[in-house]
Amino acid sequence: MNNKISKIGVFTSGGDAPGMNAAIRAVVRACTYYKKECYGIMRGYEGMIEGDIVKLGARSVGNILQRGGTVLKSARSAEFRTPEGRKKAYDNLTKLGIEALVAIGGDGTFTGLHKFYQEYQIPSICIPGTIDNDLSGTDYTIGYDTATNTAVEAIDKIRDTALSHNRLFFVEVMGRNSGYIAINSGIAGGAAAIIIPEENMSFDDLYKILGADKDTSKKSNLVVVAEGSKIGDAHSLAKQVAERSSYFDIKVTVLGHLQRGGSPTYFDRVLASRMGVAAVEGLQEGKYDVMVGIKDNKIVYNNFDVIMASHHEIDEESRRIAKILSI
Amino acid sequence: MNNKISKIGVFTSGGDAPGMNAAIRAVVRACTYYKKECYGIMRGYEGMIEGDIVKLGARSVGNILQRGGTVLKSARSAEFRTPEGRKKAYDNLTKLGIEALVAIGGDGTFTGLHKFYQEYQIPSICIPGTIDNDLSGTDYTIGYDTATNTAVEAIDKIRDTALSHNRLFFVEVMGRNSGYIAINSGIAGGAAAIIIPEENMSFDDLYKILGADKDTSKKSNLVVVAEGSKIGDAHSLAKQVAERSSYFDIKVTVLGHLQRGGSPTYFDRVLASRMGVAAVEGLQEGKYDVMVGIKDNKIVYNNFDVIMASHHEIDEESRRIAKILSI
Amino acid sequence: MNNKISKIGVFTSGGDAPGMNAAIRAVVRACTYYKKECYGIMRGYEGMIEGDIVKLGARSVGNILQRGGTVLKSARSAEFRTPEGRKKAYDNLTKLGIEALVAIGGDGTFTGLHKFYQEYQIPSICIPGTIDNDLSGTDYTIGYDTATNTAVEAIDKIRDTALSHNRLFFVEVMGRNSGYIAINSGIAGGAAAIIIPEENMSFDDLYKILGADKDTSKKSNLVVVAEGSKIGDAHSLAKQVAERSSYFDIKVTVLGHLQRGGSPTYFDRVLASRMGVAAVEGLQEGKYDVMVGIKDNKIVYNNFDVIMASHHEIDEESRRIAKILSI
Amino acid sequence: MNNKISKIGVFTSGGDAPGMNAAIRAVVRACTYYKKECYGIMRGYEGMIEGDIVKLGARSVGNILQRGGTVLKSARSAEFRTPEGRKKAYDNLTKLGIEALVAIGGDGTFTGLHKFYQEYQIPSICIPGTIDNDLSGTDYTIGYDTATNTAVEAIDKIRDTALSHNRLFFVEVMGRNSGYIAINSGIAGGAAAIIIPEENMSFDDLYKILGADKDTSKKSNLVVVAEGSKIGDAHSLAKQVAERSSYFDIKVTVLGHLQRGGSPTYFDRVLASRMGVAAVEGLQEGKYDVMVGIKDNKIVYNNFDVIMASHHEIDEESRRIAKILSI
Repeated sequence: MNNKISKIGVFTSGGDAPGMNAAIRAVVRACTYYKKECYGIMRGYEGMIEGDIVKLGARSVGNILQRGGTVLKSARSAEFRTPEGRKKAYDNLTKLGIEALVAIGGDGTFTGLHKFYQEYQIPSICIPGTIDNDLSGTDYTIGYDTATNTAVEAIDKIRDTALSHNRLFFVEVMGRNSGYIAINSGIAGGAAAIIIPEENMSFDDLYKILGADKDTSKKSNLVVVAEGSKIGDAHSLAKQVAERSSYFDIKVTVLGHLQRGGSPTYFDRVLASRMGVAAVEGLQEGKYDVMVGIKDNKIVYNNFDVIMASHHEIDEESRRIAKILSI
Repeated sequence: MNNKISKIGVFTSGGDAPGMNAAIRAVVRACTYYKKECYGIMRGYEGMIEGDIVKLGARSVGNILQRGGTVLKSARSAEFRTPEGRKKAYDNLTKLGIEALVAIGGDGTFTGLHKFYQEYQIPSICIPGTIDNDLSGTDYTIGYDTATNTAVEAIDKIRDTALSHNRLFFVEVMGRNSGYIAINSGIAGGAAAIIIPEENMSFDDLYKILGADKDTSKKSNLVVVAEGSKIGDAHSLAKQVAERSSYFDIKVTVLGHLQRGGSPTYFDRVLASRMGVAAVEGLQEGKYDVMVGIKDNKIVYNNFDVIMASHHEIDEESRRIAKILSI
Repeated sequence: MNNKISKIGVFTSGGDAPGMNAAIRAVVRACTYYKKECYGIMRGYEGMIEGDIVKLGARSVGNILQRGGTVLKSARSAEFRTPEGRKKAYDNLTKLGIEALVAIGGDGTFTGLHKFYQEYQIPSICIPGTIDNDLSGTDYTIGYDTATNTAVEAIDKIRDTALSHNRLFFVEVMGRNSGYIAINSGIAGGAAAIIIPEENMSFDDLYKILGADKDTSKKSNLVVVAEGSKIGDAHSLAKQVAERSSYFDIKVTVLGHLQRGGSPTYFDRVLASRMGVAAVEGLQEGKYDVMVGIKDNKIVYNNFDVIMASHHEIDEESRRIAKILSI
Repeated sequence: MNNKISKIGVFTSGGDAPGMNAAIRAVVRACTYYKKECYGIMRGYEGMIEGDIVKLGARSVGNILQRGGTVLKSARSAEFRTPEGRKKAYDNLTKLGIEALVAIGGDGTFTGLHKFYQEYQIPSICIPGTIDNDLSGTDYTIGYDTATNTAVEAIDKIRDTALSHNRLFFVEVMGRNSGYIAINSGIAGGAAAIIIPEENMSFDDLYKILGADKDTSKKSNLVVVAEGSKIGDAHSLAKQVAERSSYFDIKVTVLGHLQRGGSPTYFDRVLASRMGVAAVEGLQEGKYDVMVGIKDNKIVYNNFDVIMASHHEIDEESRRIAKILSI
């Protein structure tokens, strides 16, 4: 045990995700439990550079567990990408005696933290907080469960109107380069087809699945399109179908940023709670430049290089299931 | 009491709205209660023309009260706009002995029904089912309460991310030419500005409200834009602000069709239940070519001409409240 | 206009209700708008006696609009019922220069305020904040719409299991002596029977409605029981049915305090916003010892004596509708 | 591959759970995919004995994915526990040519199926559908994720009122002999203490955690009590605290059957979909008298004896996390 670390800074960075507050709370309370001081750095790297840093106690994170967003706010910082920016940030941490960092965010956040660690050797650990579930090294990222449920609730509502009007809907969900939200909200939403960046489905394949060249095809249907689709976004796919087939009444909905917010599910709260505690414990045990992850329901720590070397793949089985059930 | 009517047909038409099923159930059960037969006409005027009509009993509408959409389905019918189409429809009704009609829908539905009534004198009554709340003659239309809550829930989620990132969001809500959903979801969502078709707000007014020419302005903010906005849709307004001011990180979300679906609120279910019963009772009492409405919490019946003659105005007070609270 | 009032105190008292925070925010922002100072008195009359009072600005009520509960907290105060307690309270207000009061709460709150007004003539106004909707002088109290929706959502879930198991459920909802939540959640929830304090239904009537003496009766059913039921609570009614009939598999759920919490609906937020502004404007106009209300969608002010003289009746029509639809 | 099985019967039994419909749909569609006939047996073993069996096609399970409860209904059957009852059931299956069974339910369901398999060697497989998550052989049972989220949403609402009134709440959640729902809704709900059957916490321990003998203790708090608590249910624990300490304003809420209903989460829908397909594939591969499970996100099949031999343990880590975070 490296009990020498006595002051820890925590911050959120990159796109916000439901459960980030639960993670912040867990970091702060684990610090209290292990008798360390905890500092909240506002607006990610930007606040680190500007010295916008506040002390946090067990009570200052009361009643935030259930809230979407992040009380520490988030931002993308161009200045932190410069050596001067990082120097300022390091000086601010030093001034306050902050000896270690916990970052909550995605791959961009982690990349920044890695650079910072290489230059200043400040003990640091990353917690995966992003709705995209696109990080290898963990089965789940914080926010993914909530975002997928939000997408499914929206799809359920859209299905009501699709069924009532015998309409074909294209619903676009978030996920950047990852198809996780799409494949799982698609299976859960009973989609006829799911377009994800990980799969080489052509437009012709989609056209065939929809039975778009026959009048006898099912008229009320739903296609879920991942943001990262390689064959066109929801609007473009809808347009292509409409140009080639006159059998459908087609509508498009792009769910957008509402997928980022909302009160986190139990799953994301518990995941964030476990990861927050694990981050503080990891620092105590000398695990630096790593990301906390959950694999087969157990906490793991993986080095930056390992995480960045691979994509978080979607298993074959999910795709197979999607196919069987859209029969 | 005109107890001679013994067979009533019910259908939904136009855009679907949450609570339509509750209205169908109420019509059917009121028929049972008053010892009349009830027939469900599928897909609005289209099913009437095609003779797609089924008998409904008290049990056939069990467990639909809480569901979004409409079990009778809805469609827009071009053929019903022709005399030939209406002739076919009338013949189908006659064949089955259907003596009166209850239509659930918006102004398009009512206009078709009015034409039909003029030509064939079939006793008919309209129930206002539309999320837009754009019909004069009733304080509330079925689906409006649910749709506004759906919009507010989405805005709540978007606010989480707006606050976390200090972003300015433009959220576009439905309502066609009416600003009802916008003004009320805007007040309930704490919007900085609300753009509705009923108000002559210029882009400059909006720009001023946002304080877009000062760096000191509030950075995390929300503008709700009604679909019927006369100064541009959400995307266009966002673009205009971005072109003139560099102080904001701007995002746009168009809520779209998810506002039409979902399980209806208690308000819409009770409203639909009352209106469904009132429609059957109205027919019994010889009220034809009218729309059921609710005024000051009392059932009223207004003639087609009265309904169509005026717009459902948004009261001055709502706009005033919106202004005071966005301070 | 009585523009002499320049400092207003606001507090919540009695049982909390969703939308109280929206009302607090509206009072504070209306004060800002009309250039008055606003003070928040913590824990109702208790904080008034203890001098637990904080200054509030437009920003201090940011981001509370959507939250359940009350940020000013609530309590019941025995001490305020004594002349000594009220004296202390008055002295604390005087010390801070608070010249007028806005109370958000139910009849107990209003009774306390009335007494205080009689003794000290401090300009004061009450906003009806209670889920019970039991105050005459207003069509709706703040929190009632949300609580009824919460009850309906719970009933929807219970219906799933009732249907799956052919069970008879007794669901008890809140409302103290009022049957408002019960009658409307009962209609919206498709209940077979609704037991409210305002109606003289005997146990035998209930037994008959359920068809409990025949094996052919509907087995999956739901009875909604108001807290104020005069023929026994949910557990007692379930026991009585079970003792006399062996045809049912009976379960009981008492919804309890979850009906008090949760994010308010758009309706409660807008209602609270309007009433909060109206309270400040009422004080300006010299309306003292009154309660703000909403009647036929218009703001009204009624004197304490008027409010207390009568019960908020449930209309005949609701009961009639409930009967027709449970056919 | 045992492609000789060409007719499969599916049924739900025991307490209903959200996601059972998604599992039914997956079994039916997997049958279609693998060119088998599928029969739905109503009301579990009762319908099997009575011959209440219907043929199901891919379309007959359309639009049930998102619904709580079970369209095949569920019941507990005393008659199936007799050899005569099972004989009748077997004869009914034989008559229709049903060669294999898929049961969706908990340990009682599985026990019945095992007995039936031993007597008649009918190929059979069980899918774990219960909110309790109490079956070893699978990390998750269908319905558990939804029920835990339902509990957490209720706790969130109760926390609003607990905070507003500085109250201590005892919330009782379901789970029979298992503490899964309790421990995870407790962590996610920010409970001060969680009482589960798997842990030997004494009443004195609880009393100490609450700081109930000091006036300085936190007054607004939440204790989550599992149905299977060994030191008393929520009402009894509340009573004991109230008898020994006068520092608290205590309330109790027993969530009850609403935890069984509601639209399933994405997690439960996907889990149910995977397990439904896996059940049909398992039968094809000759896996009989087993339960489908999910372990480390992979489908597994475990023999009846293995499943029944052990309790589904709650990991040490969850309890540790609960302790650290309630600091």
